[in-house]
Amino acid sequence: MSPHIRNGLGFDAHRFADESDPKPLFLALLNWDGNGIEGDSDGDVVAHALIDAMLSACSLGDIGTMFGVGKNSRGAGMHGDQMLRETVNRVRGEGFQLLSASVSVIGNRPKIGSRRDEAMRALSMACGCPVSLTATTTDGMGFTGRGEGIAAIATVLVQSEQ
Amino acid sequence: MSPHIRNGLGFDAHRFADESDPKPLFLALLNWDGNGIEGDSDGDVVAHALIDAMLSACSLGDIGTMFGVGKNSRGAGMHGDQMLRETVNRVRGEGFQLLSASVSVIGNRPKIGSRRDEAMRALSMACGCPVSLTATTTDGMGFTGRGEGIAAIATVLVQSEQ
Amino acid sequence: MSPHIRNGLGFDAHRFADESDPKPLFLALLNWDGNGIEGDSDGDVVAHALIDAMLSACSLGDIGTMFGVGKNSRGAGMHGDQMLRETVNRVRGEGFQLLSASVSVIGNRPKIGSRRDEAMRALSMACGCPVSLTATTTDGMGFTGRGEGIAAIATVLVQSEQ
Repeated sequence: MSPHIRNGLGFDAHRFADESDPKPLFLALLNWDGNGIEGDSDGDVVAHALIDAMLSACSLGDIGTMFGVGKNSRGAGMHGDQMLRETVNRVRGEGFQLLSASVSVIGNRPKIGSRRDEAMRALSMACGCPVSLTATTTDGMGFTGRGEGIAAIATVLVQSEQ
Repeated sequence: MSPHIRNGLGFDAHRFADESDPKPLFLALLNWDGNGIEGDSDGDVVAHALIDAMLSACSLGDIGTMFGVGKNSRGAGMHGDQMLRETVNRVRGEGFQLLSASVSVIGNRPKIGSRRDEAMRALSMACGCPVSLTATTTDGMGFTGRGEGIAAIATVLVQSEQ
Repeated sequence: MSPHIRNGLGFDAHRFADESDPKPLFLALLNWDGNGIEGDSDGDVVAHALIDAMLSACSLGDIGTMFGVGKNSRGAGMHGDQMLRETVNRVRGEGFQLLSASVSVIGNRPKIGSRRDEAMRALSMACGCPVSLTATTTDGMGFTGRGEGIAAIATVLVQSEQ
């Protein structure tokens, strides 16, 4: 029987920090070369989209519900890795088992291919299920194509243990 | 056995109405404060993306197939609630059971968090399965970031009863 | 038991070729009227998004891993149909069964509705599972709304045979 399988979707986008005020670049739980993301957290759109997808699959709100929004929120300054692990614990505590997850990164940089295996191992370890990562550009079109920022879409499958 | 589980994806985007000709704002089956969407229907991108995801999961075309396109279509002036209920009936009539659905709203407004539970109840009631709603912005980037419009991506899981 | 079901997501976007150097338009394995996509392959965003979704569901990298990137890659000049069939064979060879797939096309043209059934038959034949296709515009907003290019999001469900 499969009525207890549920799916979740998450989307996130962040703007690259101004070159005059560069930041470290975190994505898919790894630290990459190049200028990072502006904002209150480490700007890891892969982690954030995954978190939204997981919470959505389990009807537990979204990343704002869990970590707050803005400079004084609990999530401000928190790394994607920690946020993801807290979310996985929350989801499990509510009786859900993560089956698989898949994330697509949309942006000009960083180039995921060279470190895809490392990123997938880190994500799968944090989530306790297979997490895949693909990447694509938008041929110079739109905000990702102009290099203004980066986006990610994630889907997950979960199973209720009841 | 699980070979009869199928997934569906839907996407929709609508432009906010000009401030000189404001409209009521409908999203996720609720009526929100603020200026609404231009167009022939009530512009509820959450309902529309869900409908596409459901019809796609069941190989029944898309929202244009079912409700038509343009000012003189059957869907013109129809509320998302009615369109969603007709779609759910159609899908059930074809022998499919909805297992779960997840929608991500991308836009500056309305702020979903304050009425997320109410929206999720309305959507889950209309669909007869758990429907989750997350929301995010694009940090001022792209058409959603500039406040030109709003978008939604939806995924659903269905099960064939045969 | 259903722990062996896995999901995958894929996204792709391509720019329309300049009118001064028109190309044939391939989408969803069909040849459509109108100017096509610039780039090294036939630019079929539906096939490419599906390939990424399948490879992601099976933790096999993405389209760049399998077909390379750029003018001298194995995928250069290859049609979506061939790429899709090679991917399906690869996925099956790794012990996965495709359960269903759903793709949403975002763009002003071509108009999918008139040939949706034909496209779904071609895609379902190539994949050996039901593949659905929906289409929407972005009301003149963003790079798809301005007619600069076309995008597609795909999700798939696969089942491990072990």
